[in-house]
Amino acid sequence: MNSIDQYFTTKREEHLEELKQFLSIPSISSLSEHKEDMKTAAAFLGDAMKKVGLENITINETGGHPAVTADWLHAEGKPTILVYGHYDVQPVDPLNLWDSEPFKPEIRDNILYARGSSDDKGQVFMHIKVIEALMQLKGELPVNVKFLIEGEEEIGSKNLPAFVEEHKDYLAADLVLISDTGLYAPGKPAVCYALRGLTGVQIDIRGAKGDLHSGLYGGGVQNPIHALADILTSFHNEHGTITVDGFYDNVVPLTDEERSAFRALNFDEEGIKEEIGVKELFGEKGYTYLEHTWARPTLEVNGVFGGFSGEGIKTVLPAEAGAKITCRLVPNQDPEEIVEKLRAHIAAHKPTGVEITVTDFDKGKPFITPMNHPLIQAAGRSYEKIYNTPTAYIRGGGSIPIVAAFDEILGTPVILMGFGLSSENFHAPNEHFHLENYDKGLRVISDYYYEVAAVDKDAL
Amino acid sequence: MNSIDQYFTTKREEHLEELKQFLSIPSISSLSEHKEDMKTAAAFLGDAMKKVGLENITINETGGHPAVTADWLHAEGKPTILVYGHYDVQPVDPLNLWDSEPFKPEIRDNILYARGSSDDKGQVFMHIKVIEALMQLKGELPVNVKFLIEGEEEIGSKNLPAFVEEHKDYLAADLVLISDTGLYAPGKPAVCYALRGLTGVQIDIRGAKGDLHSGLYGGGVQNPIHALADILTSFHNEHGTITVDGFYDNVVPLTDEERSAFRALNFDEEGIKEEIGVKELFGEKGYTYLEHTWARPTLEVNGVFGGFSGEGIKTVLPAEAGAKITCRLVPNQDPEEIVEKLRAHIAAHKPTGVEITVTDFDKGKPFITPMNHPLIQAAGRSYEKIYNTPTAYIRGGGSIPIVAAFDEILGTPVILMGFGLSSENFHAPNEHFHLENYDKGLRVISDYYYEVAAVDKDAL
Repeated sequence: MNSIDQYFTTKREEHLEELKQFLSIPSISSLSEHKEDMKTAAAFLGDAMKKVGLENITINETGGHPAVTADWLHAEGKPTILVYGHYDVQPVDPLNLWDSEPFKPEIRDNILYARGSSDDKGQVFMHIKVIEALMQLKGELPVNVKFLIEGEEEIGSKNLPAFVEEHKDYLAADLVLISDTGLYAPGKPAVCYALRGLTGVQIDIRGAKGDLHSGLYGGGVQNPIHALADILTSFHNEHGTITVDGFYDNVVPLTDEERSAFRALNFDEEGIKEEIGVKELFGEKGYTYLEHTWARPTLEVNGVFGGFSGEGIKTVLPAEAGAKITCRLVPNQDPEEIVEKLRAHIAAHKPTGVEITVTDFDKGKPFITPMNHPLIQAAGRSYEKIYNTPTAYIRGGGSIPIVAAFDEILGTPVILMGFGLSSENFHAPNEHFHLENYDKGLRVISDYYYEVAAVDKDAL
Repeated sequence: MNSIDQYFTTKREEHLEELKQFLSIPSISSLSEHKEDMKTAAAFLGDAMKKVGLENITINETGGHPAVTADWLHAEGKPTILVYGHYDVQPVDPLNLWDSEPFKPEIRDNILYARGSSDDKGQVFMHIKVIEALMQLKGELPVNVKFLIEGEEEIGSKNLPAFVEEHKDYLAADLVLISDTGLYAPGKPAVCYALRGLTGVQIDIRGAKGDLHSGLYGGGVQNPIHALADILTSFHNEHGTITVDGFYDNVVPLTDEERSAFRALNFDEEGIKEEIGVKELFGEKGYTYLEHTWARPTLEVNGVFGGFSGEGIKTVLPAEAGAKITCRLVPNQDPEEIVEKLRAHIAAHKPTGVEITVTDFDKGKPFITPMNHPLIQAAGRSYEKIYNTPTAYIRGGGSIPIVAAFDEILGTPVILMGFGLSSENFHAPNEHFHLENYDKGLRVISDYYYEVAAVDKDAL
């Protein structure tokens, strides 16, 4: 790797200048006045890809902002990596909280300040520069590569699943590689190999046809809020375990290896308590905080409503009450099945004297590439060589619908190999990217190409 | 009673003309532009009282609208009746829904239409005319009488408790007689001998210092809505019985006599279900609907709030949630004690991982004059003589703070002996008063004076 290392060192200033140009384009996908900027950013990306030796550069219309694709497919018999990322960014208000302008990138103390520096233009740019380095030094890549860089990630990737479905033959690969997440902590790299899915329902409970006077009718009629509380309470036992029949049926248990890996992180429970401002944590009995938030399904009430909530007192016996509920799902829970189980539970726990309506929300599947998958372990090795510390094998508690879509449509393992830090203000003023991780990341990704090339394609 | 009967028949037109004049004064207590009308109405009332032979007519300043007092205290050794009522009325909008003008009284089909005809000027007027009849026919009254007619009942009687407290020696009596309620049903008179009290608390539950992302933190932190649901559910068992420790301790059980009296009313459960639009009624096991709403205490959640309640989905783990709760109380529950018991219950059921704040609401005591009290039974007899049907002995599920104040400050039994009907649009357009009950009411009240005179004063 010495030559790679030297190449990036030599080209560093030139590369950062080019990245600054890329970051100067205000590619805010959510604001229609930036529609032309989105096209400019896509074109810039296409040019950058072409310059490094990628082929078949295409600015694809998607119905929304364009998606840029490119490839290099001359490593016969070798695995194919599909690199996914996004060139769109979040809005920048409130502008007065920025220390330098969001679209005038500045480096201060080896930190690059600009909207998109970390999320995700900076990380996309790294992948392009890895191609450049390998092509310049070797004249070829050790693996086949495809790029898919979209412009609508910050607005929910709404056109991408259809695009992936339509182009699934072209996008076929042995793995999807995404750098849009972060390290576990400064200096501590992380491979994220699983995300939770999402499903949910709204419960609407109806009692009388109108609000009633609690003096005249109170005590003789079911109160929809009481009925709602009974149902909400019935979802968990006192240990935080979900009591919906069959809810855990398809949950793949954490392996001993995973639990050890999580334990090895020595997660700072005192730190998280201070961060969010609670005196004690609480979760399903028998699991740690990291297991709770990464690898166990949840049933969370996101909102309740019913009756009078203004100031003071109003002695009403309300006609209706309701709640919004979402579940985070883990492999192999199926969102549709879970909704059916929720419906059955609610029906079985319906208190007397009220009518209940249950409405579904959007659904997203959970995703996992097993932690011991050779491509995950290879990613961990590449990190370790550069960071000189054991890689954290982590899961994500949130849901990135497009990741599950790759998993489902392409049937491809997904590797989340990010270089950001959670403190880098992704969606806030003063977004920044620590160039230490930019520099190390270029070397990690380069190494990973050779690691992937060394994996037996037939074993994938 | 023949001479009484004849007197009212002879004077009917003259009396109704005078009542119409009284009803023509727009004495709306809640609107400041009617401040002078309030004075006019009070003066009219004072004149009417003077004309019939009452003495010591006083228009008392109260800090708000005046209260009119008068008396006749020459029945030595006989009980004293304090007649309470109000000359203020509700606003009249929406005016376009009135078939005749609210302050131009009209009689159609023996029904008197005007704001205040039933609630409560019409009923106050009846008491004055009873004095007139007895004085004209006998030259004296069989009992001592005091009148207290206020002008702020429709705005919460806010100055009256202080007035009663200040004048408690002057207002001392053997009973307070109020005609501001209704018959049980058309043709079926009712004596209301008890009302429920009221107390309540707001519960505010705090989790993290701000709303959390349910993907990143969900499963590892207590959700304040879950905590709230657990607490709300803990207040009742599945039979609707309140499980707060000691909640029922001071409840005076219904007597067999009361339960029989309620059963004899053959309450129409199908009718109430249709009226309020529910398929089934629900209440504390072991009691009937009338017992639930009249004579059993309740704990009712009047409102809940927390998290996201807009359209669609928001995967938030909310930082706070809360509920407003009121209890209807029955004799001898004490509002202060009940709040302490609620606080203890909430503390004992506090789920882990959250902080709870409990705030009190205003409190009002329950009131009861025992059903078998001689003055209650006497009222029932007077009704029966005129209506020729058994009187209903009823309780009221609501709370009238001023009634409890009479009970408490004066230590006097209160008799609610009303002549309205619940269908008479008290607070709505086209308020009216069935003159059949005006006519019968004059005779019932007259008879009651003799019934009270016949009760042994020492037994009171």
